[in-house]
Amino acid sequence: MKSQEIHLASRPQGTPTADNFSLIERELAPLQDGQVLIQNLWMSVDPYMRGRMIDRASYVPPFQLNHVLEGGAIGEIIESRNDQWPVGTKVSHMQGWRSHAICDGQGLTAIPATSLPLQSFLGIMGMPGMTAWTGLFRIAELKPGDTVFVSAASGAVGSIACQLAKLQGCTVIGSVGSDEKAESLKALDIDAVINYKTAGDLTQALAQAAPQGVDVYFENVGGEHLEAALNNMNEFGRITVCGMISQYNATEPQPGPSNIGMLIVKKLKMQGFIVFDHWQHYGDFAAQMGQWISEGKIKWDETIYEGLAQAPEAFIGLFEGKNKGKMLVKL
Amino acid sequence: MKSQEIHLASRPQGTPTADNFSLIERELAPLQDGQVLIQNLWMSVDPYMRGRMIDRASYVPPFQLNHVLEGGAIGEIIESRNDQWPVGTKVSHMQGWRSHAICDGQGLTAIPATSLPLQSFLGIMGMPGMTAWTGLFRIAELKPGDTVFVSAASGAVGSIACQLAKLQGCTVIGSVGSDEKAESLKALDIDAVINYKTAGDLTQALAQAAPQGVDVYFENVGGEHLEAALNNMNEFGRITVCGMISQYNATEPQPGPSNIGMLIVKKLKMQGFIVFDHWQHYGDFAAQMGQWISEGKIKWDETIYEGLAQAPEAFIGLFEGKNKGKMLVKL
Repeated sequence: MKSQEIHLASRPQGTPTADNFSLIERELAPLQDGQVLIQNLWMSVDPYMRGRMIDRASYVPPFQLNHVLEGGAIGEIIESRNDQWPVGTKVSHMQGWRSHAICDGQGLTAIPATSLPLQSFLGIMGMPGMTAWTGLFRIAELKPGDTVFVSAASGAVGSIACQLAKLQGCTVIGSVGSDEKAESLKALDIDAVINYKTAGDLTQALAQAAPQGVDVYFENVGGEHLEAALNNMNEFGRITVCGMISQYNATEPQPGPSNIGMLIVKKLKMQGFIVFDHWQHYGDFAAQMGQWISEGKIKWDETIYEGLAQAPEAFIGLFEGKNKGKMLVKL
Repeated sequence: MKSQEIHLASRPQGTPTADNFSLIERELAPLQDGQVLIQNLWMSVDPYMRGRMIDRASYVPPFQLNHVLEGGAIGEIIESRNDQWPVGTKVSHMQGWRSHAICDGQGLTAIPATSLPLQSFLGIMGMPGMTAWTGLFRIAELKPGDTVFVSAASGAVGSIACQLAKLQGCTVIGSVGSDEKAESLKALDIDAVINYKTAGDLTQALAQAAPQGVDVYFENVGGEHLEAALNNMNEFGRITVCGMISQYNATEPQPGPSNIGMLIVKKLKMQGFIVFDHWQHYGDFAAQMGQWISEGKIKWDETIYEGLAQAPEAFIGLFEGKNKGKMLVKL
């Protein structure tokens, strides 16, 4: 059995380019006892993967040069030497960026039988949905009536965060990078949308959109967005720090917010998180989210690239704002 | 009755100078029913007062030009037309920067009868002590065994924070701005002291002092100190943001920490606070602190300037590191 894999050919300097990736075909070893062979059907590309392409000491080891990349994927077991994981089982796992994966059963999650599309378990029902839920409820302690500002608001996480906050009776302002994205966000009944590329001074734009001030900022972008949020936060506001995509491709250190002293003046809490630390609450999340979806209370977009060879383009597209909602690769 | 008062003569540009202050003598009006006349005995100068010298919208109104300044003080009631506040009562209040104050009884706190020196209620038993306690226990959720980094560690708040953390069984590293201050901090059995003026790269100096990493950073300074702390924090660390004295005299916006993304990578919580929001817990604080003091478990320094006319110099001295422990003016 041959597997196709995307390897990290070189470490990106700045924004990743196609040259940083290579498509390799490799003969897989026969299965050993306890192992299963998975044919991947969908894979996820996510901004956080950029961090693992840098060679630095971190709590997650960096990707290795000339080795296959990793990331969320959904596949079907097509061969099994493990009784717990029979052939035909659909599973989510972390061995993406390849057509086939061999696994010993560790780190597999069976996809439950639902009417939801399979790939939703890489999006609304998976890591991005769980990230929005965790950031709002477990980190920011969202309360009904809060004014919530979400950056990258039409992204996989941001668009869900906007809708979850609306479901709680919050006023929601989102920022996006195109008028087209602004339109689709407005269609979700978000209270106000800022196109940060055309809005001019972001602090003023946010002040106009939220004259009552911001209680919760869901941070996906960093840089000017964080400065604008700090300038507009209300006393005792909470900033849930999910990502800072504007910083990921920087080739030298970027100055932080010049108004970080607002943390004191306004008595703010700013907290970073990584969703995998909260995974023990996935059941609570999935039950709530499944309910909201079944009631038609939440919608989501997908941007789909076809074929493993397109995975690098899909990934690079994340930093060019090419996705509406979840960026996916269909294998 | 005449009162001497320090007025704000002009708004400081950068570090305050003597020219920004003027000493005025003013005739006080006779007391009305319900009022008391206080002769001030001690007054406090604190870094936070610098913020109120700027003319900007904030949650606390700025000091007005050619009006008397305000701040913590302790005095004795020498005339009273209020039965609740008899002559001879020692009180703490917020009408400092003047020799005599007229008050209607609001905002007065009677100094309890103890063997402690009166001025300790502007220091260890007052706002700075309560600030250290609040920042460690209510904001940073200090746990025994934590490694704690305190900046401005020989200051009024920092030196108490260091000792409170030691009392909890923590490992404590302090940063100070002179070898003399380092020596006095070491005399308090603090585990390691960094003289930031001679230590070179602060990230490396902190890494050497805390090879196990930092769980709690008590932030009094900002700038490079915050960057160094972020670089050395452990996962799930907490940064309690009490002050950023390095920023207060800046004449233009200072770049924030270039490594603010560490909040995500390390899942950090960073929270600003102002002690007055927590004043309902003063009784708990005072009981615990009084106990520790009576057991000889905590020590404090004072730096005393004599006479109201010296108050501006005492205040300016805060930004030049002239105080060990609490900076006070004896009237």
